[in-house]
Amino acid sequence: MSLLIKNGRVITATDDYFADVFVDGGTVKQIGKDLAVKAETVLDATGKLVIPGGIDPHTHMDMPFGGTFSSDDFDTGTVAAAFGGTTTIIDYAIQTRGKSALEGLDAWHKKAEGKAAIDYAFHMILTDMPEERISEMRRLADDGVTSYKMFMAYPGVLYADDGTLYRAFRQAGADGSRVCLHAENGIVIDEIIKGAVQDKKLAPIWHARTRPTRMEAESVHRAIAIAELAGASLYIVHLSSADGLEQIKLGRMRGVDVHAETCPQYLFLDESAYLSEGNGGFEGAKWVMSPPLREKGNQDALWQGLRLHHVHSVATDHCPFFFNGTWKPGDPSPERPGKELGRAGFNKIPNGAPGVENRMALMYQGGVVEGRLSLNRFVEVTSTFAAKIFGLFPRKGTIAVGSDADIVVFDPNRTETISVNNPRTHRMRVDYSAFEGFTVKGYPDTVISRGRIVVDKGSQQAKGGGQFIRRARAGELLR
Amino acid sequence: MSLLIKNGRVITATDDYFADVFVDGGTVKQIGKDLAVKAETVLDATGKLVIPGGIDPHTHMDMPFGGTFSSDDFDTGTVAAAFGGTTTIIDYAIQTRGKSALEGLDAWHKKAEGKAAIDYAFHMILTDMPEERISEMRRLADDGVTSYKMFMAYPGVLYADDGTLYRAFRQAGADGSRVCLHAENGIVIDEIIKGAVQDKKLAPIWHARTRPTRMEAESVHRAIAIAELAGASLYIVHLSSADGLEQIKLGRMRGVDVHAETCPQYLFLDESAYLSEGNGGFEGAKWVMSPPLREKGNQDALWQGLRLHHVHSVATDHCPFFFNGTWKPGDPSPERPGKELGRAGFNKIPNGAPGVENRMALMYQGGVVEGRLSLNRFVEVTSTFAAKIFGLFPRKGTIAVGSDADIVVFDPNRTETISVNNPRTHRMRVDYSAFEGFTVKGYPDTVISRGRIVVDKGSQQAKGGGQFIRRARAGELLR
Amino acid sequence: MSLLIKNGRVITATDDYFADVFVDGGTVKQIGKDLAVKAETVLDATGKLVIPGGIDPHTHMDMPFGGTFSSDDFDTGTVAAAFGGTTTIIDYAIQTRGKSALEGLDAWHKKAEGKAAIDYAFHMILTDMPEERISEMRRLADDGVTSYKMFMAYPGVLYADDGTLYRAFRQAGADGSRVCLHAENGIVIDEIIKGAVQDKKLAPIWHARTRPTRMEAESVHRAIAIAELAGASLYIVHLSSADGLEQIKLGRMRGVDVHAETCPQYLFLDESAYLSEGNGGFEGAKWVMSPPLREKGNQDALWQGLRLHHVHSVATDHCPFFFNGTWKPGDPSPERPGKELGRAGFNKIPNGAPGVENRMALMYQGGVVEGRLSLNRFVEVTSTFAAKIFGLFPRKGTIAVGSDADIVVFDPNRTETISVNNPRTHRMRVDYSAFEGFTVKGYPDTVISRGRIVVDKGSQQAKGGGQFIRRARAGELLR
Amino acid sequence: MSLLIKNGRVITATDDYFADVFVDGGTVKQIGKDLAVKAETVLDATGKLVIPGGIDPHTHMDMPFGGTFSSDDFDTGTVAAAFGGTTTIIDYAIQTRGKSALEGLDAWHKKAEGKAAIDYAFHMILTDMPEERISEMRRLADDGVTSYKMFMAYPGVLYADDGTLYRAFRQAGADGSRVCLHAENGIVIDEIIKGAVQDKKLAPIWHARTRPTRMEAESVHRAIAIAELAGASLYIVHLSSADGLEQIKLGRMRGVDVHAETCPQYLFLDESAYLSEGNGGFEGAKWVMSPPLREKGNQDALWQGLRLHHVHSVATDHCPFFFNGTWKPGDPSPERPGKELGRAGFNKIPNGAPGVENRMALMYQGGVVEGRLSLNRFVEVTSTFAAKIFGLFPRKGTIAVGSDADIVVFDPNRTETISVNNPRTHRMRVDYSAFEGFTVKGYPDTVISRGRIVVDKGSQQAKGGGQFIRRARAGELLR
Repeated sequence: MSLLIKNGRVITATDDYFADVFVDGGTVKQIGKDLAVKAETVLDATGKLVIPGGIDPHTHMDMPFGGTFSSDDFDTGTVAAAFGGTTTIIDYAIQTRGKSALEGLDAWHKKAEGKAAIDYAFHMILTDMPEERISEMRRLADDGVTSYKMFMAYPGVLYADDGTLYRAFRQAGADGSRVCLHAENGIVIDEIIKGAVQDKKLAPIWHARTRPTRMEAESVHRAIAIAELAGASLYIVHLSSADGLEQIKLGRMRGVDVHAETCPQYLFLDESAYLSEGNGGFEGAKWVMSPPLREKGNQDALWQGLRLHHVHSVATDHCPFFFNGTWKPGDPSPERPGKELGRAGFNKIPNGAPGVENRMALMYQGGVVEGRLSLNRFVEVTSTFAAKIFGLFPRKGTIAVGSDADIVVFDPNRTETISVNNPRTHRMRVDYSAFEGFTVKGYPDTVISRGRIVVDKGSQQAKGGGQFIRRARAGELLR
Repeated sequence: MSLLIKNGRVITATDDYFADVFVDGGTVKQIGKDLAVKAETVLDATGKLVIPGGIDPHTHMDMPFGGTFSSDDFDTGTVAAAFGGTTTIIDYAIQTRGKSALEGLDAWHKKAEGKAAIDYAFHMILTDMPEERISEMRRLADDGVTSYKMFMAYPGVLYADDGTLYRAFRQAGADGSRVCLHAENGIVIDEIIKGAVQDKKLAPIWHARTRPTRMEAESVHRAIAIAELAGASLYIVHLSSADGLEQIKLGRMRGVDVHAETCPQYLFLDESAYLSEGNGGFEGAKWVMSPPLREKGNQDALWQGLRLHHVHSVATDHCPFFFNGTWKPGDPSPERPGKELGRAGFNKIPNGAPGVENRMALMYQGGVVEGRLSLNRFVEVTSTFAAKIFGLFPRKGTIAVGSDADIVVFDPNRTETISVNNPRTHRMRVDYSAFEGFTVKGYPDTVISRGRIVVDKGSQQAKGGGQFIRRARAGELLR
Repeated sequence: MSLLIKNGRVITATDDYFADVFVDGGTVKQIGKDLAVKAETVLDATGKLVIPGGIDPHTHMDMPFGGTFSSDDFDTGTVAAAFGGTTTIIDYAIQTRGKSALEGLDAWHKKAEGKAAIDYAFHMILTDMPEERISEMRRLADDGVTSYKMFMAYPGVLYADDGTLYRAFRQAGADGSRVCLHAENGIVIDEIIKGAVQDKKLAPIWHARTRPTRMEAESVHRAIAIAELAGASLYIVHLSSADGLEQIKLGRMRGVDVHAETCPQYLFLDESAYLSEGNGGFEGAKWVMSPPLREKGNQDALWQGLRLHHVHSVATDHCPFFFNGTWKPGDPSPERPGKELGRAGFNKIPNGAPGVENRMALMYQGGVVEGRLSLNRFVEVTSTFAAKIFGLFPRKGTIAVGSDADIVVFDPNRTETISVNNPRTHRMRVDYSAFEGFTVKGYPDTVISRGRIVVDKGSQQAKGGGQFIRRARAGELLR
Repeated sequence: MSLLIKNGRVITATDDYFADVFVDGGTVKQIGKDLAVKAETVLDATGKLVIPGGIDPHTHMDMPFGGTFSSDDFDTGTVAAAFGGTTTIIDYAIQTRGKSALEGLDAWHKKAEGKAAIDYAFHMILTDMPEERISEMRRLADDGVTSYKMFMAYPGVLYADDGTLYRAFRQAGADGSRVCLHAENGIVIDEIIKGAVQDKKLAPIWHARTRPTRMEAESVHRAIAIAELAGASLYIVHLSSADGLEQIKLGRMRGVDVHAETCPQYLFLDESAYLSEGNGGFEGAKWVMSPPLREKGNQDALWQGLRLHHVHSVATDHCPFFFNGTWKPGDPSPERPGKELGRAGFNKIPNGAPGVENRMALMYQGGVVEGRLSLNRFVEVTSTFAAKIFGLFPRKGTIAVGSDADIVVFDPNRTETISVNNPRTHRMRVDYSAFEGFTVKGYPDTVISRGRIVVDKGSQQAKGGGQFIRRARAGELLR
């Protein structure tokens, strides 16, 4: 199947030029002025941007959490991602404490296989890692899972202690795998939560008040120190605060190999959301996620970090739960309970919010339209950097000869209002939008995965077809 | 009993003047030019310094460790302290995991009662602190134990996790008690040690190589972050490295209430000591203590810290163990095994070294004689600051009307060579000196505890007589 | 003349005790419990604090500025100082560009001689310092002028370029003299002012808006860098901002010998004062001084700096100018024009404000009463530190045997409202108060200079009698 | 004229792929697999890297300095650049104090016109900038000179004071021009030099000892502070030290728009070069340039800075002077005196050294071969970043459709030893190499400027042909 995208303005993390892009067999074959090739499909991209498909390196599809599951699976979640201009996700598989990580990987392969509309890869969440099982890590890398996530939060659930961190960091460093980290000191936070609950401080706002930014900063600092000793390449996920960012900067000033990811929610929303009226004071539950939304001043710090290369990547941490437990026209009601699990207290609210569909448009609006990021930097933080750090490059993350034709034809003039009621912006299987009412200028028109048009002008063109991508190790290229 | 010290140069943390000091009933009654008072004893201090008796806020007398006990008890240890110019120690009592801290306090009262030649007080080491026992902390404060020590090192033994730190810090902050902290990330260090032992790296030098300064810095940073949230006043004990010190400075720049103590071993010795020849490669065991001796460059950083008020206090962490297991003339051989417990590997060597007797002379030499500290600052770091931060002031830590007459007549011109073989510098019950062969200019001539002459010109004048001092809370004065 | 101060609570930078203080021949002779001495004068200090007389190391009496002179001379200014509890000032003599500094010193001796009610010393402002005159610096030190001030502000008037700074810093370092610095980048500020004036931005608020804190920080950093190379001991005067303070902290972290002074105006007032209504928009001229008042957030940073030893001294920069040009009952109208010189534009307003009388009471209120500083630290920042850094110690800055009896009996319970209309708080020869309406708890009752009562319960007891004090070099004591 | 480069591995700042590159009319027309196009010239790049031609944003051809001129002119200098793989230089034109910058530009156009073998652009050195001439700055920008250089060093010659900096920074910020800065505090340095000369310290090593790194750091800090106020985009040229770099990092942490350039000499050489034996102690003069070579430890800091995006660009500061005043076979002896001008003292030695020819090979060796930089980062720091920051992008700095065909076919396996005697590495008109004897792996085989082969396998293929490039303003693209 061949495809010719004509007359677009091609943007990569570095480049910016007008050309035709010719795709055949799922990869880019030629780029040039007025290409004289024949193609089965021809797209006119005049006046449009032609950009690498988005890579969302942080999603949780079909993930068990606190007695339920996130409401998007690999079918609905990847379709929504595609509508939003994302052509690859890296989802977090989970190793169960005391069990083999390879079992966890198998389970996630089963969740995804045959369902995904776009390509996907897995990180592996490690919950423990005793010496006797540490050889699993190299096997995971051999199987294309070349990154881990560990939690300094959620004691008793996903939490890994410092010894586990050190062991896993050392092995990852030796294997050329990268380490992702949820950096919040969950041990101290649990003590603070205990106090709040004793004092009957149970409303959603207490989710934010019991997770101080200082505890994010502390964990970032600690993880950097351990990674420095262990020789690991560190990637802090969903960085949410200026305090946390300061530690990233100080670590990098010292020369440590650490990078940071943030999410649109920390760039566009703030903790006042938890005080939203409605639903009997429970409305704020929609934004209960960890780390929580922060005071507004943190937003500028994070945007500045993106601009000045202190923050490197933007992911969504997509992890939706229904707010009301009913779904809209035609859809069977969900069998998965949602935010209502936490009616009795903020600490029981499932952590997470939807977002996989909104990332590209939000970042274009807040970054490019509002003048904070160049077009190249927009592409870099939404796609290229993730491809490079996570071993997908050069197959993914760029538009270049030989690369997978994961391409978005992006209309810089199309305006949309993000809403659960706007089917052009909301295909996620969840009954609310975290960004309800946000208006964005610039939206994906056509979304192409390995040369296959998945979405075109707001309608789904293909189902399934996504493949698992075995990722490369640090220092290797994925050809 | 009255005492008149004539014509000395009186030095406090602030002052510097020539006067007579008249003592009666154990306290200072008058200070003046040519005092026309009658005293039972008259000391001529012409040409001498008259300084507040030293306060050593960090000793471990008679302390259980790794199957043995430190070799000095409250008798021998306090006599040695007095010979060295120290008139108050604050020793570390221990709460046993799962048991009441009050029991621990009783045990230490029994160890000390009637034995000490100088006054003493206790910190309480907390090894756990569940909600249900937290009221003990206020009772300890009521009993004059207004400071705690917690260990981020030694997992499974003295280690307190971050939740325990937070709970105890909160309570201490509420009570006006202070928190002392051994700041090394013992969890990570244990992993590193495990690796070294597997690789048969067992010589004393590996004690240093398995305890990187980065893990001290990490713990200092973490403790500061937790104290900041908990509202506690923090005191980092035995700070050993420039990396750790940097975190103290950054914390204080941010405005956190944190202070730091260092010890002569970190100011005068370095990790090359672990490579000392002799005793079949085991000679270095003499300096196995935690944190370990560091690379030489750290010394300058710590001295500069003392000068510029980034480091606030100098203690000894006195915790002696015999090297050969035999003692000198007249003394019964010790029933307590010592360093030989670690012949098989550095990780089995009892941690600690002697020093309570050498602190004042070493600090005078390295500080005043070598031009790094003013006389006032010498007094402040060896006595006054500890008195103030630990609730002994103004009874201790100064020479002022109404204060306890804990006074040292210090000869700035007397030269001594510190040696296990020099009875004027070595009364500690241990068969080696950590500072063997160091020559110092300036030495205590007469050491007075509450008006009672304990040591005079190298001979012991009194036995016992030391009292337990109930210390005040933060913000209170001990009159 | 002998004096006995009975039953007071004596506070020094270190000590805190109850005792009688016996003064004879102008110095302290004895301190003790229930002293059985006879004295010509006996003061009962029961319930009072007995503290070292304040030292104000930064005043401008009778100083030429922009075509007029500051309105207090050494008579009125020192009487006001005494009423406020200050017993020593260090005033700034000025070397005229191209002329000998020794001439400048002579001129200031003439201004002061026989007039001052309290003791005084001089710093020397250097406006240039070519090689051929640099030997003057040592002669000044020999004459007891062991500190300089140089201006990085006021180009064409007092400004010294970086080369002059370096030369003078080197010489001062070699001589044991200290260097005071007005740290604002006047070259850049003059450009900014030029722009404001061109844009007809002439109201008093533009005084603040044309002197950004970043230009204070820049100059602090630059001065520290130059001092580091030149081996000078640096003292930044009237530090006004958090930005500037950050550079002090960073310099000290690096180990540079730099200290900082702030003033009550920067601790209690903020730039909103320039927007005060009244007097046709000119009311704000009362607070036109350099550096200007800053945004309110800077106050907390400076207080914290005082508490944590990042800021070391509190002076007034007393430099009063009449606001309306008329004076109150009995006083001849001033021959010196004042703030009205700047009616046409903020850049013509004489820079300076009154304050020498208010410092001690304000610092007691804001520091001790409001819980930001201990009593000892209050004494240290208002007296002792200045004595030590500027070579007045131990004659000044403490209450100790042999020291000058510069003593304030301070009533911690007396309340006053500072006002130009309250003769107990306003003896300065100027027609407004910079702190009008501030209520303070705690006020000097009796103020003693070398044993002589100058002020007692609000009435002046002596006229003249102040002496010039030759100050010691760094590292020397002034006995 | 068309050209087909077949089978190469194409590397840009982002991409890495195998493809054919087809060039026609001086620009890239197509990139693709097995392109079926006909070309007049076909180059087989199998096993070779195909990279963007190097951009050297810092050269001084034919520059007057201290009574002579740099020895390369726009003919010899650009040929040498081309041999080394550089296809664009940005040379520094000079405005003469008191005269129009436009005159300076004319003079430099005359120097370059018709001579250059590769494309060139100009920065403009501003030596003064009074209000009345400031409109020239916009005219320069209109003429394609969209960057300035100002000197904080060289008082009396090129030095601009802080007021001039502020005025020019403001105007540059308003115009979208960028500001380059030589950051050394020349005022202080001149004082230090004066002292050294007085002390008869005249050997080349004193060039380094009189220019301390602290004075580079100071000026970097100052420039950042001024740029922050003025709203300028700042670019620090030839950063040489860890101290200076720390200020870059701190400025960027604070969010200031500042970038840094370093040079191979600071990455590969150190101050021990000044102590080289030979030539009667004058050998070290070869490396007299400002800033000077530094202590070796600075090299690692700068490399790390390049890796972690704290340093952004690598230029040469090419400014050669003959060492012996004679030239090699066939060349007329130079009419320009060289280093011998400084026989009498280091301060008279013409500042500068050759390097334009060695940059690409040195950076490939030290960066890629020795594992410090990725291939993409190598391209970015030697070409792409300079193109972007200086308004040459996308015409220069990348290989993309529509870009100028400034391309280097680089053989990663070719080994050369840099030497004045090796004609493949030394075409510069100067009688020594600053990197004599360095062996590099990887060297340019074919160097193409706008589709024209200038150098092929060590022989020059074209003469002249270089064009002046009018550069774009910040935020604009040069199509």
